Amino acid sequence: METVISSKTKTVIIGPERPFTIIGERINPTGRKLLAAEMAAGNFERVIKDARAQVEAGAHMLDVNAGIPLADEPAILAETVKLVQSITDAPLSIDSSIVAALESGLAAYEGKALLNSVTGEEERLEVVLPLVKKYGAAVIGISNDETGISEDPDVRFAVAKKIVERAMDYGIPKEDVIIDPLVMPIGAMRYAGQQVFAILRRLREELDVNSCCGASNVSFGLPNRGPLNGNFLAMMIANGLTSAITNPIEHEIKQSIMVADVMMGHDENCLAWIQANRVETPGNEDGGERRRRRRERRRE
Amino acid sequence: METVISSKTKTVIIGPERPFTIIGERINPTGRKLLAAEMAAGNFERVIKDARAQVEAGAHMLDVNAGIPLADEPAILAETVKLVQSITDAPLSIDSSIVAALESGLAAYEGKALLNSVTGEEERLEVVLPLVKKYGAAVIGISNDETGISEDPDVRFAVAKKIVERAMDYGIPKEDVIIDPLVMPIGAMRYAGQQVFAILRRLREELDVNSCCGASNVSFGLPNRGPLNGNFLAMMIANGLTSAITNPIEHEIKQSIMVADVMMGHDENCLAWIQANRVETPGNEDGGERRRRRRERRRE
Repeated sequence: METVISSKTKTVIIGPERPFTIIGERINPTGRKLLAAEMAAGNFERVIKDARAQVEAGAHMLDVNAGIPLADEPAILAETVKLVQSITDAPLSIDSSIVAALESGLAAYEGKALLNSVTGEEERLEVVLPLVKKYGAAVIGISNDETGISEDPDVRFAVAKKIVERAMDYGIPKEDVIIDPLVMPIGAMRYAGQQVFAILRRLREELDVNSCCGASNVSFGLPNRGPLNGNFLAMMIANGLTSAITNPIEHEIKQSIMVADVMMGHDENCLAWIQANRVETPGNEDGGERRRRRRERRRE
Repeated sequence: METVISSKTKTVIIGPERPFTIIGERINPTGRKLLAAEMAAGNFERVIKDARAQVEAGAHMLDVNAGIPLADEPAILAETVKLVQSITDAPLSIDSSIVAALESGLAAYEGKALLNSVTGEEERLEVVLPLVKKYGAAVIGISNDETGISEDPDVRFAVAKKIVERAMDYGIPKEDVIIDPLVMPIGAMRYAGQQVFAILRRLREELDVNSCCGASNVSFGLPNRGPLNGNFLAMMIANGLTSAITNPIEHEIKQSIMVADVMMGHDENCLAWIQANRVETPGNEDGGERRRRRRERRRE
């Protein structure tokens, strides 16, 4: 099962036999007051910087969100989509909770976008799925519905199944639906992790669809979140997760994803790992990793 | 399914609803020339230091091996077992490839030991299982047999099943057999990780036994092994691994196990994580973690 997403010039394939797909999360004004104010005022310098830095750090795709209170979100999202496409070839995930913004983002996009997202709520399915079909996009389906987010993994799986079936009713192929199993904060919900692992296994084994999640919600409220998010990503990948909306600039997150690629057999000959962790030799100017490891040895 | 191991004064329970069990790997002269020479000469200072440091770092049990070429392994193993039991209450894993050493280690041990190990080879099963029964110990069963280590996870699972069945024929209860799925170096065998994940899931779902593995073999020959071993442990735990023979003194390994306990719901209220990662405040003298995190922020 492979999901193809593309920009004008670059194709990304999400699938269980592929390296894990990193969707950069940073172009999102939620909780970023400065970015929100700048985007609302038509200043996109930080957006450009965030786009470039995430691709540089290993993002295969970029999530683009323009959810700014009291602003014209459809217009700003379309402008952001165009701008980001003009400076990088990374395919985009068009992210909004407002249907009009999703549509204006899709209209502005060149290529096959990933739409983020639709839930299992009837009124969302009825308006978002026709958009996905009209623009030939793929879509992230979030496993909650009118009744909220169930703590029972079987109920969340049933919602996921419903979304996939409804999409197919609209003529959207199954491979263009990516399910988000919904990661809850582990500090508030003790078995949130095991719930997600169980759903991910069923998404792979029974429903045969790709999966995506936000990876940092799990550590909400806890200290030292980098290793929590990183190791949790590796644990989800070992249970079938194929993509995540996350921040590759965070060292532990990028590192855990690289390890997971090695351990799933998706980093052929471990080349990416070896290259990223090679030790400085005369003539090799990239001593950053070696310095980092020296610091770590001192720490022991 | 819970496996109970004990010393005179401490009980460790290995099981899927428990925090992960760390068995310290350091008391092992294999590849440690200095330690081997000292142990052969009756100098156990380093053994004592390694025992204390591992328990301090979070080891629940300690593996004890005395495999020194040309030395009297049964006598040295018995002496080491007695000595380690005199300075710590951690239950022991008695580790040898020589049956006479396993027996003398068991005879010297006070409590219910873990015997490391038996393979699926007929001649090993016939001599080791009676020892396990005689001393009322638990045993690690390694999933290889006369034909070697199969790359087919189904064959390795079948060997594991045979070991469990043979143990039960000898009157050893199933919960006293812990299976090692055998972790091969990922640099040489691309799908070694996926093989182990598949075996671990079947050990839990079909055979309902506990599992144990050496966690550092996977990264043999690769650079920056700490994060490889740590994240791989977390990935195995997410697929059902319940114990490992590993080095809790290595920062990444201990950290990944702590994250895995959080994510499996086995660190209640995340207390262990919060305590280990608390930020320095006036009157709190443990500033090590805070300094470490400051260094990491500078790195970003």
